[in-house]
Amino acid sequence: MQQSLQQAVSVVADADITVSAAGRTDAGVHALNQVVHFDTQARRADRNWLLGINTNLPDDIAVNWVKAVDTQFHARFSATKRRYRYLVLNRLCRSALHHQRMWWFYKPLDIARMQQAASLMLGQHDFSALRAKECQAKSPIKTLDQIQIIRRGDCIAVDVEARSFLHHMVRNIMGVLMAVGEGKYPPEWVNTVLASRNRDAAGVTAPPEGLFLTEVCYPPEYSLPTVSAFPVLW
Amino acid sequence: MQQSLQQAVSVVADADITVSAAGRTDAGVHALNQVVHFDTQARRADRNWLLGINTNLPDDIAVNWVKAVDTQFHARFSATKRRYRYLVLNRLCRSALHHQRMWWFYKPLDIARMQQAASLMLGQHDFSALRAKECQAKSPIKTLDQIQIIRRGDCIAVDVEARSFLHHMVRNIMGVLMAVGEGKYPPEWVNTVLASRNRDAAGVTAPPEGLFLTEVCYPPEYSLPTVSAFPVLW
Repeated sequence: MQQSLQQAVSVVADADITVSAAGRTDAGVHALNQVVHFDTQARRADRNWLLGINTNLPDDIAVNWVKAVDTQFHARFSATKRRYRYLVLNRLCRSALHHQRMWWFYKPLDIARMQQAASLMLGQHDFSALRAKECQAKSPIKTLDQIQIIRRGDCIAVDVEARSFLHHMVRNIMGVLMAVGEGKYPPEWVNTVLASRNRDAAGVTAPPEGLFLTEVCYPPEYSLPTVSAFPVLW
Repeated sequence: MQQSLQQAVSVVADADITVSAAGRTDAGVHALNQVVHFDTQARRADRNWLLGINTNLPDDIAVNWVKAVDTQFHARFSATKRRYRYLVLNRLCRSALHHQRMWWFYKPLDIARMQQAASLMLGQHDFSALRAKECQAKSPIKTLDQIQIIRRGDCIAVDVEARSFLHHMVRNIMGVLMAVGEGKYPPEWVNTVLASRNRDAAGVTAPPEGLFLTEVCYPPEYSLPTVSAFPVLW
């Protein structure tokens, strides 16, 4: 994503541009409202940046808006909140249409148990057990502000919100919730996992294709457009 | 689709199988609830047909249910109604997520005008002007039972229902509705187009990627499962 975007922006700016993104998205993860900034001397109308960049991007990346911001803005460091949604397709048969957009899980899941487990993750914890080995964050302590599980037919959505997340943290949270949901462990297992501070004590890392970065929030003084999470998510 | 399915069914049946589908879906068109039948001497449990066929299909095709029917059933000829949905993304910027699943149309569309135009297509007409040159149907006369246009944010859905359709008929209907919606022609242009019985007098053929076969209906005596149109359509 970063490289494609840099190339496209550089074409429009007619200069080498480096871009910084609000949130990491691993290969296979979808970003609906990713926010990216760059510095440039080039002066173009917003509409020309927008259409010019999109013309130079591959089909699976698109820019939705552009806006000039003052130099102290940083897409990553100015962000005050990030929201992710993880989608699970919970039924016997896989879906052709949702291939690469949901985790297909055929064993029945108990949402009430998942919800109980999720509530034990809320607030500030040492999330070392749910952190990828490659994680670069200085501290493993994060505060999970919200975690909500919704079922609609065969689809389950898990929405999480925090100021920031560790590497693979959402996918590792999903690994724990699914193990509880399918009955491998009781909801209280979450406490054991977190207390262990050991990645090997937790569940699997959920596949990337079910994960969507849905929103990044910034202080109101930047007046950034709020793009609603795409209505077509499920 | 037909060939992949025949191969997969043949593996499970351990014999060469020919399948017949309810509705044609051109390359790029999506089928959510396509119905297909085949004859076989093989005896397998429903669950074994289901899982076995899915295992042998590529990722972009999946079977949702199987059911034994009596020999007079024919997926194509027994069908009493077919429903299609056409999705348009109507905004300045294309979508990465909905690439290949919607027609991206950046010019503003007037839904009220489209609705007026659509209502003139309802009922029995000679649809020669909205029929592909390659169409094999004996008669160009069809009865459009329903046509409904819904807008939700940037997305527009057009739902159509008829016993059967001519080749490319839904995509050609869309070509006419869009030309009216963007203001090229008044809604009454539909009457001129239909009266011409001439394909060249109508609009473009809408691209296949926005088209979804959403439902095929059969007489109740076959007791086929009703699979709801996927909630994730928008």
